[in-house]
Amino acid sequence: MLMQPAEVAARPALIDNIRAAARNMQVSGIVEAMKHGFGRQGLIPLWAGEGDLPTPDFICDAATRSLKAGETFYTWQRGIPELRAALANYHAQHYGVAPDPERFYVVASGMQAIVMAFALTIGEGDEVVIPTPCWPNAGAAADAAAARPVFVPMTPGENGFTLDLDRLARAITPRTRVLFINTPGNPTGWTATREELRAILALARKHGLWIVADEVYHRFYYGDAPRAPSFHDVMAPDDRILFVNTFSKNWAMTGWRIGWIEADPSLGQVIENLIQASTSGVAVFMQRAAVVALERGEGFVAHQIERARRGRDIVAKLKDTGRVRLVPPMGAFYQLLAIDGEPDSRALCFRLIDEANIGMAPGTAFGPGAEAYLRLCFARSPESLTYAVERLTAWLKR
Amino acid sequence: MLMQPAEVAARPALIDNIRAAARNMQVSGIVEAMKHGFGRQGLIPLWAGEGDLPTPDFICDAATRSLKAGETFYTWQRGIPELRAALANYHAQHYGVAPDPERFYVVASGMQAIVMAFALTIGEGDEVVIPTPCWPNAGAAADAAAARPVFVPMTPGENGFTLDLDRLARAITPRTRVLFINTPGNPTGWTATREELRAILALARKHGLWIVADEVYHRFYYGDAPRAPSFHDVMAPDDRILFVNTFSKNWAMTGWRIGWIEADPSLGQVIENLIQASTSGVAVFMQRAAVVALERGEGFVAHQIERARRGRDIVAKLKDTGRVRLVPPMGAFYQLLAIDGEPDSRALCFRLIDEANIGMAPGTAFGPGAEAYLRLCFARSPESLTYAVERLTAWLKR
Repeated sequence: MLMQPAEVAARPALIDNIRAAARNMQVSGIVEAMKHGFGRQGLIPLWAGEGDLPTPDFICDAATRSLKAGETFYTWQRGIPELRAALANYHAQHYGVAPDPERFYVVASGMQAIVMAFALTIGEGDEVVIPTPCWPNAGAAADAAAARPVFVPMTPGENGFTLDLDRLARAITPRTRVLFINTPGNPTGWTATREELRAILALARKHGLWIVADEVYHRFYYGDAPRAPSFHDVMAPDDRILFVNTFSKNWAMTGWRIGWIEADPSLGQVIENLIQASTSGVAVFMQRAAVVALERGEGFVAHQIERARRGRDIVAKLKDTGRVRLVPPMGAFYQLLAIDGEPDSRALCFRLIDEANIGMAPGTAFGPGAEAYLRLCFARSPESLTYAVERLTAWLKR
Repeated sequence: MLMQPAEVAARPALIDNIRAAARNMQVSGIVEAMKHGFGRQGLIPLWAGEGDLPTPDFICDAATRSLKAGETFYTWQRGIPELRAALANYHAQHYGVAPDPERFYVVASGMQAIVMAFALTIGEGDEVVIPTPCWPNAGAAADAAAARPVFVPMTPGENGFTLDLDRLARAITPRTRVLFINTPGNPTGWTATREELRAILALARKHGLWIVADEVYHRFYYGDAPRAPSFHDVMAPDDRILFVNTFSKNWAMTGWRIGWIEADPSLGQVIENLIQASTSGVAVFMQRAAVVALERGEGFVAHQIERARRGRDIVAKLKDTGRVRLVPPMGAFYQLLAIDGEPDSRALCFRLIDEANIGMAPGTAFGPGAEAYLRLCFARSPESLTYAVERLTAWLKR
C-alpha cells in the first residue's frame, strides 16, 4: 500500500461512508460482557447460550469420516438428501406427522435461518414484532435488513414472564410483516401454551402476517410433556409460518454453525436462491455429522435435558439468599434473576465478573423488560453450578 | 398439522406473500445446467467453479485434530487470532507489506464476504456497477439486498474481453455506491493491469464510491509474474476498498465454506456486528484447517496452478477444430468458448450434456455479453480435459 498523506487528510473517515443500517447496529450486550471477563482465571462462564459439553465423539467422527472420504466439494444448496430425510424423520418422531423432506432446508446456523426467514418477508421500513426480553440477534437481523424491530415487552409476574396478547395485537401496524415468536423463550423461558399459539396464529391470519417460529429449545421443557407446545400442533398447511432451528443446543454443536429452515416446498426455489447468494450451502462433512446427530443422538439429548433440569433446581437455591428474585423457567436453559437493590444489570454484570468471578449476561442485552435481570445459563455440570451458587451467595453476604 | 380445507381454499398462495426482492431473484444458470445433467454416467463435469482435487489430507487432518480436541464451542466473531495472523502473513508474503491482522475478518465463504461487503455499502434502491460477463452470485447478492446491479458489458476482442473505462464511468449515477471488480475475472479471465486498477480507483475516489475487490483468483495468473496485479498495489490506506476472498480455489476447499474480508480496522466493530447477526462466526475446526492451508499449503497451490496452466493449453487445442472460437485467459481457471453457428449458449449447453456428455455452464448465466459463450473449468486433470476435447471435437464433426 502506498501511503499518500495529503489524500488521507482530505477524505472523511471510512466509517462515515458505510450504510447507516449497518453502522447503527448495536453491539451485542452478551459479547460485551464476555470481552470484559475474557481470560480471567477461574471465572465461571454462565453468559453464553451454550452448555459445557463438547459435541459427542460419535457426531464428530462422522465429520472426520466424510473428510477422509474426500467430501470436500460443492453440494446441494438445499442440503444433502440424507439430511433432509433425517430432518423429516426427526419431525415425524416429535410432532406425530411425517412431513415431506422437501420442507427442510439446511443452512449455516439457526442465526442464518432467521436471516433467511427475514429475507423472505421483510425489507426496508417493514416492521417485525418481537416480544421481549428476547435474544438480541433477532432484532439485530431486522436492523441489518433495514427493517424495524417493534418490541413488545412481556409482563413479569409471580409465574415468570407472560405475553399480553392484546398488547401484541396493538403493536401491529400497516407496516408489520412478521411476528417473531421464540418459545420456549431465550432468556425468559416463557413457553407458549397451545391456546396461546392458536391465538397468535389467529392474529397472524387476521392481519396477513408471517410467523417466524423459533422453537430451538422445544426439547428443553420442564412441563408435563416430552416437548414444548409448537406451532406444528396448531397450524394448517397454508399458514405463513417459517420455522427456524439449529443443531447447536440439542446436540452441543454451537460451534459448528449448522441449522435448518422448515417451510412450505412451494418456497423451495426462492430459498435455494437465497442460500446460493448468501453462503452457497453447508459443508457435506458437517451435514454427515448432523445426520448422525438426528439418527443416533436421542440418548445424548435426553442426558442434556436431564442435566439442565438438575441445573435449574440448583440455581433455584439462590432464592434462599433472600435477596435474589427468580422464577424457575418452563423451558429453555436460562435463569433470569434479579438482585434486590441492583436495578442496573449491565453495571451489576461487570461487578460480578470483577468481584465474584462469575460471568452472566446483562438483561440490557435482551431488549425492553429485562433491564433489572441477569441471564444465567444452567446447561452445565451440577458441580460448576453449585460452585457458582455458593460464590454468588457469598458475594451477596459480603 | 391440521388440514382445514376451507381455509386453504380461501387464502392466496404462500409464494405470493413473500418479499418481491427475494421472489424475483434469478435461478442460477449454472445450477440449472448441473441439474439437467445430474446423475449421467460418464459425464465430464466442467460446469462448476471448482477443480477435481479433494482438499489435501494435511488440511483435513487439522480439522479432525481440532474436533478431537473438543473445539466445538462458540468462538471469536471476527475469527480466531491464529487465523487472522496467518492471513496477515499470507498477505505480507504475496503483496510485500505486513498488514495489521485486525484488517482480516473470517467469514462463512467468499460468497458471504460479498454479502457482508454489500451490507456495509448498499441498501434498497442503491446501485452497484458490475462489469460483465461476471459470476452470477454478485448480482444475485445485490438483488437480495433490494439494490440494483448495473451491468457494464465488457468488449470481446482478439485478446479476449476488455473493460472500456469510459463505459464504466458512464454507468455511474447518483445512486451508485459500489464498483464490483472481479480480477482475474470469472468467467472471462480478464485481468486488470496495474494501470487499469489505478484508473478504476481514480474513478471510485472521484465519485466517492466503494470498491468491492474480488481477487479470489489472484494466484491463477498466466502472465509474467507470480500473481495478478491487485488493488493492494495501488491503494492508499484510506481508500474505500473491501477485499473479498475465499479458501475455496487455492486450497481446493470449495465445499468448506470459509473465506475472509479484508477491510480497514476502523470498520471492525460493524463487521463483527454483521457477522454476529448473519451466521455468528465460523467453526474453530474449520479455521484450524485454514491456518494450516495458509502456512503449509504453498506446495499444493503451486501444483494446482501448474495443473491449471496445463489445462488451459489442452483446452486451447479446441481451436484446431476450426469451429471453436476462444482466447486463452490471462487469469482464473475458466475458458470461455463460442461455437460457430451456435449463438444460444443455454440451448447449446443442454444439447452438449445430452449429446456429448460434457457439462459446461451457459454464458447466459453470466449477465450481458456472454450469451454466445460456454464456460469450461480447466482446473482438472490433463486426462479428463484431453478426453473432453476429444469428445467435443467428435461432436463437432458428427
